[in-house]
Amino acid sequence: MELEINLIQGGPPLYDQIYGHIRDAIRTGELKTGERIPSTRSLASYLNIARSTVTTAYDQLLSEGYIESRPQRGYFVADLAGLDYMPFGRDEEDTSPDTAALPAKGTGEEEHIDFSPRSIDLKFFPFSTWAKLTRSALTNGAAEMFSMGDAQGDLPLRATIARSLLLSRGVHCSPEDIVVGAGNDYLLLLLSRLLGEGRTAGMEYVSYVRASRVLYRAGVDVRPVAIDSRGMSVESLRASGADVAYVMPSHQFPTGIVMPVGRRSELLYWAAEKDRYIIEDDYDSEFRYRGRPIPPMKASDSLGKVIYLGTFSKSIAPAIRVSFMVLPRHLAEVFGREYRVFSSTVSRLDQRVLTAYIGEGYLERSVNRVRKAYRIKHDCLLESLRGLPPGYAIRGADAGLHLIVEEEEPAGPEAASEREREVALLAGKRGVRVYPVSDDLIDSARNLSWLKREVGKLKPAWVLGYAALDEGQIKRGTDIFRECLEEAPARRI
Amino acid sequence: MELEINLIQGGPPLYDQIYGHIRDAIRTGELKTGERIPSTRSLASYLNIARSTVTTAYDQLLSEGYIESRPQRGYFVADLAGLDYMPFGRDEEDTSPDTAALPAKGTGEEEHIDFSPRSIDLKFFPFSTWAKLTRSALTNGAAEMFSMGDAQGDLPLRATIARSLLLSRGVHCSPEDIVVGAGNDYLLLLLSRLLGEGRTAGMEYVSYVRASRVLYRAGVDVRPVAIDSRGMSVESLRASGADVAYVMPSHQFPTGIVMPVGRRSELLYWAAEKDRYIIEDDYDSEFRYRGRPIPPMKASDSLGKVIYLGTFSKSIAPAIRVSFMVLPRHLAEVFGREYRVFSSTVSRLDQRVLTAYIGEGYLERSVNRVRKAYRIKHDCLLESLRGLPPGYAIRGADAGLHLIVEEEEPAGPEAASEREREVALLAGKRGVRVYPVSDDLIDSARNLSWLKREVGKLKPAWVLGYAALDEGQIKRGTDIFRECLEEAPARRI
Repeated sequence: MELEINLIQGGPPLYDQIYGHIRDAIRTGELKTGERIPSTRSLASYLNIARSTVTTAYDQLLSEGYIESRPQRGYFVADLAGLDYMPFGRDEEDTSPDTAALPAKGTGEEEHIDFSPRSIDLKFFPFSTWAKLTRSALTNGAAEMFSMGDAQGDLPLRATIARSLLLSRGVHCSPEDIVVGAGNDYLLLLLSRLLGEGRTAGMEYVSYVRASRVLYRAGVDVRPVAIDSRGMSVESLRASGADVAYVMPSHQFPTGIVMPVGRRSELLYWAAEKDRYIIEDDYDSEFRYRGRPIPPMKASDSLGKVIYLGTFSKSIAPAIRVSFMVLPRHLAEVFGREYRVFSSTVSRLDQRVLTAYIGEGYLERSVNRVRKAYRIKHDCLLESLRGLPPGYAIRGADAGLHLIVEEEEPAGPEAASEREREVALLAGKRGVRVYPVSDDLIDSARNLSWLKREVGKLKPAWVLGYAALDEGQIKRGTDIFRECLEEAPARRI
Repeated sequence: MELEINLIQGGPPLYDQIYGHIRDAIRTGELKTGERIPSTRSLASYLNIARSTVTTAYDQLLSEGYIESRPQRGYFVADLAGLDYMPFGRDEEDTSPDTAALPAKGTGEEEHIDFSPRSIDLKFFPFSTWAKLTRSALTNGAAEMFSMGDAQGDLPLRATIARSLLLSRGVHCSPEDIVVGAGNDYLLLLLSRLLGEGRTAGMEYVSYVRASRVLYRAGVDVRPVAIDSRGMSVESLRASGADVAYVMPSHQFPTGIVMPVGRRSELLYWAAEKDRYIIEDDYDSEFRYRGRPIPPMKASDSLGKVIYLGTFSKSIAPAIRVSFMVLPRHLAEVFGREYRVFSSTVSRLDQRVLTAYIGEGYLERSVNRVRKAYRIKHDCLLESLRGLPPGYAIRGADAGLHLIVEEEEPAGPEAASEREREVALLAGKRGVRVYPVSDDLIDSARNLSWLKREVGKLKPAWVLGYAALDEGQIKRGTDIFRECLEEAPARRI
């Protein structure tokens, strides 16, 4: 092939220029799927630059999926069409609710509309503010910032989080109860040690799959629990033998169910009976569009049974890698005595920037602005879904960044997931990606006999996230989704 | 008290100004130990600003130890004299070798000379380069940087680390074998899961205490192993029943012993016999002042038995929170299959900055510069220690950022630690902090009967780190240390 690369001296770093040239050539179709690209050696010699510069550019292209490496043969342009709907059994990494949407890597012509519930709109990332606060911290912070900080997170950040939790969520806690960490996965790993070995966690049988896998890999036995219209069934939780319940009471993922007060009390009673805990993952509570804000269970945790997990992934961006947990006092004491040996996983620079971001009111203003924008998208989706054929209902709306479309008639566990996949594949072929709820079955619930016994007949349902789409995309995507629902006839049992 | 604070409008953030005023008033002695400072409410009302601004300033002062809070009574100036030598049984956090030295918080008059082996000279932190690369990443990185990256760390960073390891340490590895994480503690926690439950780690009985505690809290049984002049005793390791050996063969902490090739082979043979592993913590290999560089065991790990732990804490700064491990291929495959569910704990922004920092040659140039500066300090310390009274030897010099001064006659386990503490306390009273080697006894070795049986007679010894001190401090500190050695008579047994 002919690859025309004109490097600009004094411009961006050379590897960035090479990366950009090749990426654009692939995007525009100048380089076609399967086409061989030059070896790092020959390109370096052709451009008369260091081979490591070319290697870095290729590494970036590899990691972003533009090219692939075939042993003994070299580098080839990857098949980008593989980026639309991947059927059931997709990559584990994809099950995170805090993956941000990248610009669609289309082949140029076709539109890709991805209703990912794990996306946020990165357009809202407070880029210039973040850069300004970082510069200011780098200028004023001096040496202290590059020394080691507190194991639980630096006190100013914890104090700021405590104040913010009180104001925005009605949670009274002391900075001593807060542990800051680089992401929920890390905090769950740490928590699994803090709670002691031999724990069993109950999770709703459709839930946040990544958390179930993190807990499992952290040595916690994870058992599926039935869910009804009010959230986790406490009866089923008891039957599971779990001593930890993982719930998202403000807006369950994926069903969007808000757990009413009565069920919350039931859960708290269950926890109070023995050495049991509730992990409350309050992952998207910033976004509520109608009705009163829903306080977290932690706000009424007088007995010290609730471990509250909070994140800035949705309200700021996934990649800032800052989450926190609020521990009941006695667990915070155990942490202080025995677990401070785990040094903080968040750099003091990031902590300082975040402290300023929250403390100086930027977060609140940004959340208010973003909430308005998401509300417009949410309302647009609801409006577009009015045209659904009869027999479908919308659940879990009015909060968060996704809702679900559910068939009103049950179809049984096997048939439900088959139908979900059929519709998702049809939509995928037309450039629209919707998410079968059965993708959110936690691993230990994928046992059909359990599902049949505990849950009985299941209703096919699809998760639609809207955060990263604009109104036009939402409308066009919904139209295609509706046509696919009609095209693939629902099987009644 | 009268607290004169003139806030500058349009200057640094208000809380920073308040923090600075009070800190300086304490440093200069204007505010004295035990003196009460105004409540947040009254200071806020006096200055006519938001109370939260004052609270943030006080939080920072609290976290840095300038003030303390007494329940129901308010805030008081803390006793800063408490910052010199703390006797045996000090805070766990203090046992980390990657704590950076803060500027001495003296009461103004007295000089504090801290021979901490856990310090680095933050003066060398490449502040402006780091800020420049951060700005450039923030400008060019766009949205991708705020989305989620690869669980093992972004490929460009892993590729850069792999190339750098090959060039600087002779380690051949593929980017797929590397896992990047926010600090060694996190990586050890992750590793403890990856290696499977029921593991027992053998560690030299004086070693990196923090690592022993992290492993213990991660569910790994930690057993003490004897150490001789060539490092970990493989005979004692066998007797311990361990199936993982944690070693620092290039420069053991705290003894500074370099493990010779014969002992390394013995260890590798031990590992090859069964399902056993060696964790090689290569924590300070950048700094070697004489003789040939010592390749890590990982460079000759043909059987896939060595897990290599590397960090940028010493070569850049502890607070950037980036470490990495190189896994044997089969463990990397297990990681890829089962552990990618743990999302990366390092933000993509930090990864990108570090990739540029290494890839564009800054790290190498900086390490070369810093090595020269540390070598001057190292040589100055050796020179100053020539005046030691007879009966003392210097061990573990020529590499790293610390050495030890050891009595040539053994004193038995109990007497050794008593003598060490006596000298350290004497020196502490004169503003010089040296570190008893018995502080580095791992918890499971603090059993005297084990020590007597396995190790027999112990020699009193002190760890002297020099990275954060200037030549004048090294000379003055060494003089005082020598006088204390003479003042406290060695007890012979």
